[in-house]
Amino acid sequence: MSAIFSFQSLARCSQTKARAGVFFTPHGPVETPRFMPVGTLANVKTVTPAQLKDTGAQMVLSNTYHLHLQPGEAIVKGGGGLHKFMGWSGPMLTDSGGFQVFSLSEMRKITEEGVKFRSPHDGQIINLTPERSIEIQNALGADVIMAFDECPPYPATRQEVEAATERTYRWLERCIVAHQRSDQALFGIVQGGVYLDLRSQAAVALAKLDLPGYAIGGVSVGEPAELMAQIVQTTAPLLPPEKPRYLMGVGTYREMAIAIASGVDLFDCVIPTRWARHGTAMVQGDRWNLKNAKFREDFAPLDETCHCYACQNFSRAYISHLVRSQEILAYTLLSIHNITELIRFTQKIREAILSDRFTIEFGHWLTESGTKEQED
Amino acid sequence: MSAIFSFQSLARCSQTKARAGVFFTPHGPVETPRFMPVGTLANVKTVTPAQLKDTGAQMVLSNTYHLHLQPGEAIVKGGGGLHKFMGWSGPMLTDSGGFQVFSLSEMRKITEEGVKFRSPHDGQIINLTPERSIEIQNALGADVIMAFDECPPYPATRQEVEAATERTYRWLERCIVAHQRSDQALFGIVQGGVYLDLRSQAAVALAKLDLPGYAIGGVSVGEPAELMAQIVQTTAPLLPPEKPRYLMGVGTYREMAIAIASGVDLFDCVIPTRWARHGTAMVQGDRWNLKNAKFREDFAPLDETCHCYACQNFSRAYISHLVRSQEILAYTLLSIHNITELIRFTQKIREAILSDRFTIEFGHWLTESGTKEQED
Ligand SMILES: [Zn+2]
Ligand SMILES: [Zn+2]
Repeated sequence: MSAIFSFQSLARCSQTKARAGVFFTPHGPVETPRFMPVGTLANVKTVTPAQLKDTGAQMVLSNTYHLHLQPGEAIVKGGGGLHKFMGWSGPMLTDSGGFQVFSLSEMRKITEEGVKFRSPHDGQIINLTPERSIEIQNALGADVIMAFDECPPYPATRQEVEAATERTYRWLERCIVAHQRSDQALFGIVQGGVYLDLRSQAAVALAKLDLPGYAIGGVSVGEPAELMAQIVQTTAPLLPPEKPRYLMGVGTYREMAIAIASGVDLFDCVIPTRWARHGTAMVQGDRWNLKNAKFREDFAPLDETCHCYACQNFSRAYISHLVRSQEILAYTLLSIHNITELIRFTQKIREAILSDRFTIEFGHWLTESGTKEQED
Repeated sequence: MSAIFSFQSLARCSQTKARAGVFFTPHGPVETPRFMPVGTLANVKTVTPAQLKDTGAQMVLSNTYHLHLQPGEAIVKGGGGLHKFMGWSGPMLTDSGGFQVFSLSEMRKITEEGVKFRSPHDGQIINLTPERSIEIQNALGADVIMAFDECPPYPATRQEVEAATERTYRWLERCIVAHQRSDQALFGIVQGGVYLDLRSQAAVALAKLDLPGYAIGGVSVGEPAELMAQIVQTTAPLLPPEKPRYLMGVGTYREMAIAIASGVDLFDCVIPTRWARHGTAMVQGDRWNLKNAKFREDFAPLDETCHCYACQNFSRAYISHLVRSQEILAYTLLSIHNITELIRFTQKIREAILSDRFTIEFGHWLTESGTKEQED
């Protein structure tokens, strides 16, 4: 794989497997550990790229499945590729569409070849294979592209998960062959459901392929938090230490802290923007419903320690007013704050690792049995 | 009235009554002629104050009727007044609520005292009088506040309009007595429906009160464009030349050009943000539906001559993609562009007046019988 991608570890925690590093990409460095905001349809919902940059976002995700359906990868490519099309000049990552095909598509047929499903837009049959997913991702042009994987549901039998995990490996081999651009890094995805031995086998097998980065997929699909923690704790240490590790679809405080303690570097999740659209602010580990009567005359910022545009310019009372009035600007301000909050959380952990104070400052996240954010 | 408000005329068109000037307020100058964006509920829909500033916006409107209902003027005042509450440090104007009470409220009873209506929020009876409107506007704290007026519908009999116009004058006298803050300028509103003699009488009567500014209200309520032009042409020249003139609720190209030719300085309208939320871009006098198939692969900016954030960073194809995907960011980008476009239109007219080229450059807007923007 091209030397334009490299991962540099800067510090290791003396108590855990946590590490602070830098992942270099053609569109700039990503300081790890770091939360990555999600821009499913080539935009982070309600947030402009200029606002997104101010949140501290470095790498931004987008979605192969959604972009293939609308506007189609040819239009994104025609617009100069994903970065130029959506106006984001920093690092980007596209997922492979696997997760969406397996979780969103109702009419689908899975074979060794790939997955056939009906487009929810126009009902046409779409044939998504490892080769096609890579072809689409090559056209989109993100810095990091993901292997096309089979993500089994939860719960699933050991037999089902074993078959999906083995197929995921065969599909990964096909992805590697199909991949055409040296300026894009192809990450492999470890599956294996909640079966720790399957996870271990998959991690060891993938590690041998010397890919530029590795992801842990198929978590946060309904399994208990304790199982997810075990999966990450088992899998992450088996992945090559000189490559970045990405835990897919996870962006809650406790789960990120636990994963970081196991050596994970990158995270993504839609919750900061989704909760924003429900009028919810994420504040230092808590969740606040801005419709709550107590915010009506509360003229403090959401978080006095937060440097985001929302906290620097507006009060809880004002944002509460916007939420009550169903003004879209509320969702923009809350998205800006929530994204900033999650990135700050991972940034603060990074700084703690660099000064070897991770367990001192963040140890409570590793030991508490649950957090308020998990309540609903 | 306080000397902190003054209007300075810088140039007069040699062919028309158009003029370029500056209206000084406690929160800064407003260069005229100028379009003012509308922030009904203490925000310009989908646009942050930082984005709004970049559109070239100087004075921004907000709405007494809506803010009284939600969050209530006490909360706005508690938050430091309207400027601080919504994060807009430039000049602001609040309307009196008269137009909304007469056009939006179904359950209302009009007497000489004022208007009683049911709150659409909680069904409570609200008694809005000239004194109460001024009290609310004093609490909100905009630089310019508007007299509480009776806005007759269109069509209405001469007798009905005459009664409403006379009552509007009596209410204005009560507003003047009620007004408590020297750092706010109270503008009077000329009513008179489509009856030009009633408009003239009202304008002459109001002019004698030596108010810091004057508005022409009760237009754009359904009357033909030709009648609106006659009303403005009759009324504006009767208002004191040393005071700013504001045509309420008008923001279409032709109507603004005609009004400017009659000596009007300020305009407001919700169309740039409302059309944005319908996926419509205003481009150099035209209206574009971004869902149109021709924009799918059009990688040019909305308007190559526009310096707005949307035009500098995104293509028609991208915004078309966002509109098709019903992504809220589309409405933000289109609102930014549309507001910028209308402000630029009035700015360009201002520059033309300053060099006495108004009729040369904008004469076609004064003579054409209609424009595309009027089509629906
Ligand atoms: Zn914040
Ligand atoms: Zn523009």
